[in-house]
Amino acid sequence: MSELLVNVVRGALTESRHMGDIALVDRAGRLLASVGDGERVTYARSSAKPLQTLPLVESGAADAFAMSDEEIALCCASHSGEEMHVTKVRAFLNRIGVPESALQCGVHPPYHQPSYEALLRSGTQVSAIHNNCSGKHAGMLALAKFLGADLDTYLDVNHPVQQAVLSVVREVCDLDESQLVLGTDGCGVPVFGMPIRNLALAFARFADPEDMPDGRARAMRRIARAMMSHPHLVAGTDRFCTALMQAGQGTLLGKAGAEGVYCVGIAPQGFGLCVKVDDGNARAAYPSVVEALRQAQVVDKDVIDALASFHRPQLKNHQGTVVGSLQTAFTLRPPHETDK
Amino acid sequence: MSELLVNVVRGALTESRHMGDIALVDRAGRLLASVGDGERVTYARSSAKPLQTLPLVESGAADAFAMSDEEIALCCASHSGEEMHVTKVRAFLNRIGVPESALQCGVHPPYHQPSYEALLRSGTQVSAIHNNCSGKHAGMLALAKFLGADLDTYLDVNHPVQQAVLSVVREVCDLDESQLVLGTDGCGVPVFGMPIRNLALAFARFADPEDMPDGRARAMRRIARAMMSHPHLVAGTDRFCTALMQAGQGTLLGKAGAEGVYCVGIAPQGFGLCVKVDDGNARAAYPSVVEALRQAQVVDKDVIDALASFHRPQLKNHQGTVVGSLQTAFTLRPPHETDK
Repeated sequence: MSELLVNVVRGALTESRHMGDIALVDRAGRLLASVGDGERVTYARSSAKPLQTLPLVESGAADAFAMSDEEIALCCASHSGEEMHVTKVRAFLNRIGVPESALQCGVHPPYHQPSYEALLRSGTQVSAIHNNCSGKHAGMLALAKFLGADLDTYLDVNHPVQQAVLSVVREVCDLDESQLVLGTDGCGVPVFGMPIRNLALAFARFADPEDMPDGRARAMRRIARAMMSHPHLVAGTDRFCTALMQAGQGTLLGKAGAEGVYCVGIAPQGFGLCVKVDDGNARAAYPSVVEALRQAQVVDKDVIDALASFHRPQLKNHQGTVVGSLQTAFTLRPPHETDK
Repeated sequence: MSELLVNVVRGALTESRHMGDIALVDRAGRLLASVGDGERVTYARSSAKPLQTLPLVESGAADAFAMSDEEIALCCASHSGEEMHVTKVRAFLNRIGVPESALQCGVHPPYHQPSYEALLRSGTQVSAIHNNCSGKHAGMLALAKFLGADLDTYLDVNHPVQQAVLSVVREVCDLDESQLVLGTDGCGVPVFGMPIRNLALAFARFADPEDMPDGRARAMRRIARAMMSHPHLVAGTDRFCTALMQAGQGTLLGKAGAEGVYCVGIAPQGFGLCVKVDDGNARAAYPSVVEALRQAQVVDKDVIDALASFHRPQLKNHQGTVVGSLQTAFTLRPPHETDK
């Protein structure tokens, strides 16, 4: 059962509440601490992007296309559609000779409001390149091209790209075929349902891939380094993933997923954290991640302090006056205490 | 304790869940049926707008300014900032000689995306007139002017306009001074915290004000008629309030509030319904309202059918493919069963 994660307080009242589940694991997948149900099954959504990028790097495709760390970071991104993101994804597609029209992620306005407004003011059409997943789709197209596979059907679960992703997910998350639940993501690719403990394990292994086979460990290190070196490409201006990885300075690998999923790889200890907000609202995931890192005592106080605006967000009205706040309300407990 | 209202299903998994509380009452305030805690305390938020408009009509201000039903509907609106809304609020302010700059609701982009995009493409600045609450604030300014009160401080809880609103809220919701919790709304005005049973009572009385004193009953009927006659002004294109009141054809008075609050006055029976989604997400409120109306057997099947897209919403990805759905999961129970 999910437990209370965050209270939404306005004036003297707790107006809303967010329940959820949290798992903290080591790189062997042992549950070190949890809130609610550490085995709660959910889809990884965009938290799977580092895993989805792994076949691109492991296969040699990334090297064949001379991909930069920036381009690898963009494959793992849920970016805000800012100029820096759009320009770099476009340049990558150009370089590998794949047209923008091959992107099948669909269209939504850039998350970054000023960028969206600038597009409209300039009369530019919003297109698939602005979709937060355009980097991931560009990476999947690159792998398809490298493998000599069809570029039109790369979303299909039976396509060589998706089959390669599926193998990686099973292996890195330590899942039997029967434990993996398949669905369709907001951008059309297959999504992977699994216990949050297994999703946390993947991030523990990205944070410290020592126990992985050599080639895989190399690829995982490269992806983690790319994301942590370019946090502004993984998300964007004012976004939590960017702030978390900037604050972590190479020790924290963070990635959000839709419906209130958040995963962190914690490099010094080789730990992985996964938060799932039961109702799917990301506003409760960010405070919960920072509070869980604080309670687990896995980061320095100055990292927590640097993330204060995500840890204890204030609610402001449209005049900018503070009218409330989000307040975490959980205690991370070792598994034997949770079992009571 | 809140109970499960809605499952968010993607592929084979329930990905997210929304808990909440529901109260159905008659116009004496008797709890007829509930889900979770029928006495759960929350803020009315924008569901209070018909109540906040009552002093404007009761005082004679609406008549003095020759307000149309359209203008009264806009005072009760959380409108989408479409051309029809903005033009009419602007014209009303002009007629009563109050400048747009007097609106203190703050600025946010129009909810209606095409209207927002059209503004940006035309180089128009988004302003307070586009705020979903601009009609309510125009109404409060009209009452302030009618009362000869200060126009600059109308947001203050001690201002004659807000004091008049407070009295009305206490009386129509049947609340002692001690039972009313005050906070600040997203648009800067005082908000009213109370049990959802009392909020439902207000809507039962708007639906059938027979037990109210004559002047109040007249004013309540006028407000209810204005809203139900102009549902497109109370919300806008593709919005639930508009669809509900269109489907109800003069029998249902619906008004949303922020943080997952929804109230319905059911005219034929003189009943009131209030739904509060515990986590504050409106996506779960709409299916819950339609399902509660269905289970309570207070509307015809064709009304439920007309609201099918809100009752059982499909989740689509950015390509428009259906990838999941929202499914209600509660049973409305008479109070004696709930007490078990």
